[in-house]
Amino acid sequence: MTSNGLPETLADALQTRFAERFQTGMAICAQHGATTTWLENQPPDAVVFPQSTAEVAEIVALCSASQVPIIPFGAGSSLEGQLNAPYGGVSVDLTRMDSILAVHPEDMDCVVQPGVIRSRLNEHLRDTGLFFPLDPGADATLGGMAATRASGTMAVQYGTMKDVVMSVEAVMADGRVIRTGHRARKSAAGYDLTRLLVGSEGTLAIITELTLRLQGIPEGIAAARCSFQSIEAASKAVIAVLQTGSRVARIELLDALTVKAVNRYSKQSLPEMPLLLAEFHGSHASVKEQSQAFAEIASEFGAADLVWTANHEERARLWQARHDVFWAVLGLRPGAKGISTDVCVPISRLAECIVAATTHAETLGLIAPIAGHVGDGNFHNLILINPDSPEEVAAAKSYIGWLNQLALSMEGTCTGEHGVGQGKQAYLVAELGPALHDMLAIKRALDPKGIMNPGKMLYGEIGGH
Amino acid sequence: MTSNGLPETLADALQTRFAERFQTGMAICAQHGATTTWLENQPPDAVVFPQSTAEVAEIVALCSASQVPIIPFGAGSSLEGQLNAPYGGVSVDLTRMDSILAVHPEDMDCVVQPGVIRSRLNEHLRDTGLFFPLDPGADATLGGMAATRASGTMAVQYGTMKDVVMSVEAVMADGRVIRTGHRARKSAAGYDLTRLLVGSEGTLAIITELTLRLQGIPEGIAAARCSFQSIEAASKAVIAVLQTGSRVARIELLDALTVKAVNRYSKQSLPEMPLLLAEFHGSHASVKEQSQAFAEIASEFGAADLVWTANHEERARLWQARHDVFWAVLGLRPGAKGISTDVCVPISRLAECIVAATTHAETLGLIAPIAGHVGDGNFHNLILINPDSPEEVAAAKSYIGWLNQLALSMEGTCTGEHGVGQGKQAYLVAELGPALHDMLAIKRALDPKGIMNPGKMLYGEIGGH
Repeated sequence: MTSNGLPETLADALQTRFAERFQTGMAICAQHGATTTWLENQPPDAVVFPQSTAEVAEIVALCSASQVPIIPFGAGSSLEGQLNAPYGGVSVDLTRMDSILAVHPEDMDCVVQPGVIRSRLNEHLRDTGLFFPLDPGADATLGGMAATRASGTMAVQYGTMKDVVMSVEAVMADGRVIRTGHRARKSAAGYDLTRLLVGSEGTLAIITELTLRLQGIPEGIAAARCSFQSIEAASKAVIAVLQTGSRVARIELLDALTVKAVNRYSKQSLPEMPLLLAEFHGSHASVKEQSQAFAEIASEFGAADLVWTANHEERARLWQARHDVFWAVLGLRPGAKGISTDVCVPISRLAECIVAATTHAETLGLIAPIAGHVGDGNFHNLILINPDSPEEVAAAKSYIGWLNQLALSMEGTCTGEHGVGQGKQAYLVAELGPALHDMLAIKRALDPKGIMNPGKMLYGEIGGH
Repeated sequence: MTSNGLPETLADALQTRFAERFQTGMAICAQHGATTTWLENQPPDAVVFPQSTAEVAEIVALCSASQVPIIPFGAGSSLEGQLNAPYGGVSVDLTRMDSILAVHPEDMDCVVQPGVIRSRLNEHLRDTGLFFPLDPGADATLGGMAATRASGTMAVQYGTMKDVVMSVEAVMADGRVIRTGHRARKSAAGYDLTRLLVGSEGTLAIITELTLRLQGIPEGIAAARCSFQSIEAASKAVIAVLQTGSRVARIELLDALTVKAVNRYSKQSLPEMPLLLAEFHGSHASVKEQSQAFAEIASEFGAADLVWTANHEERARLWQARHDVFWAVLGLRPGAKGISTDVCVPISRLAECIVAATTHAETLGLIAPIAGHVGDGNFHNLILINPDSPEEVAAAKSYIGWLNQLALSMEGTCTGEHGVGQGKQAYLVAELGPALHDMLAIKRALDPKGIMNPGKMLYGEIGGH
């Protein structure tokens, strides 16, 4: 072992091969642990910055030979400890693999390296009339978004990463490079390894290239907001809108406390009641028609203060409320740490779930405002705690456990879009029970040494971990 | 061994347990081999008709104990030999598991057993205002459609089975029952076993229950048809329509020979030129707008004889041309056997692929008209051969091999929707190469005895097979 915890032969080999692109400093290692989560930061022993698939394959082969853990790293914005290194090892920082390799406007797809940031892809695409539709909030890398099966506000119309990733190139645990598919828009060729790797959180392979489906920039975009007397009324309005077969691009819910935080933070004067924000994409005529249909349905459920617009600047202001939520809510309690929940339930149970969650959080004395991707049945509490208070930490943990169980009892999931990582391993067992046996069998088959992001997602892995 | 080829202990156990629901007659076994394909019929040794998940689990456990192959069976409409029993074994006929277990209108989903036939689900749903959107042509079972990752004419708007199956219950190779998810509209909980089982063709598990996403029946439906001077012009029109972000529910292409066959069979008088059929779903106003936009774009590419309608009967007549294709084409050469190809390529390459395919088929002296799900880049030749002519069989095989290689050279796939089965194993290797290693590792991990539909999809399986 070297002083940094890596076997000497491995550290020497990586140093020789990657020179200044191999780093072992404490600061850089700490930055590559899980810093955006409430979980303890567990830094890797070293960080390496590959610039090509061949270099990733070399790194994996070297780590495999020494049985040393490998943790793929993108923007560092994951929320469940996916980037921590509980068993040490090498963080493989993919941000230098940030080329947009091809855009195929006629096929409405593109090929990118994993380190490309979402917003940069859209800047690059602007002149093609196409866009990449998913927006998870964080300006994440596309590789990271694929690895955690991210989604965000646009999922209700455009799906999640499982829907927009057409195929990937990946380096497997033994250093082999595979491709899971090509550029056909659909395929029935063999096991769906694309979807197996999307959401596998680096525990099976490192994604080194992605082929992504794009969308045509709509001719018209209209946005609307309105306020409701209750979460139930807002949820019922959403169900009614979806049942008409209307194509809603986004439909988001903020609870009264979140609206209050937004008013304070962004100096707005929104009614401090449950708020729905919706957006429609299509032709000018169709977005007008859809906005009107939305207004009619919302009114039936008692919506007040309905505002709608197809004007770009007004729309940007309207969505500002949504984008401000994270910082606005933190402003409710300066100095507090925010812990995000991520349950997703069938929409018919959503109102009941949110109301019970609000009541239970109050009972526990927690400040835990809610914002939700309500068209998918997915919502987040941002629980504000003093991380130095054992009572508050315990209350937050108790709340999270209770909420996840509630979601499971409603045929939902403990994670709609953040993934399992270290934070939800126990809930994954509760949720899928016997299927964990098969996940573990797949893990062991594809990563027999247990070196791919060990200690994440699945309990009971192999090797030293 | 008994006379039917099964080990005596297994035959006795199944006979005792299932009585008249265990059958070994030659006729019933032959019906359960692959009868709708050009591949040789390889009947199983016996057929058993379970009525519950528990019974499927019992059958699998018994077969596992004797290391006897298990072949799941639905409507028998698969096209690549997925139902053949090259190593004998037990066909598990799931058609008696045909209950619609739940419909959740607010959540727009339903839970069904695998033997439910697609058309029956839609009859059942009619009063709810919802429908199940996929239409693969054959009136297949939903379990079979999931197992082969089927799609059909509606995939361009509504996706394939990978998109509409939310989760499944399945019996694994050791007889354990698992559930891959619940009813949340999205989830990031663990490996995506749902998508792994969808398209696995019975080689990993038997699907015993499916949760399916439904769609709201649109307020308006409009259909259009028009004729083009060339396949290129028709393909370019399709690309232009898709790029506008227009929501096309179906967009189908028939080549001139197929149109000729349809005219003869259905006594129509369509221009014997490449024909596009399109359908739009939405509000009355939006389908009118989309039809008009379609007409404008089609005209730019030289479309003639454009006919469009929102009238139900007229629309039914318009689509009749498409639905008649299989029988109409067979009518071009009475007594011939039809062999279907299934390549899918990026849309930008589609015209080139179809034109080359037509020329090559002519060179080989084959009658091989084309109909395609052109919005996805997927098309089928129906090759008409005399199965007793070794020359014609050889020419057809040569053509299929050439076409699959052409599709791969265009970054496409050898199978858009029919699956691999026995017919495309070699092409799967050509298409995904190194990834086959990982598929085989998964197969061995989840089915160590190699009893689940052996001899399909992957070469080099384990056990006796």
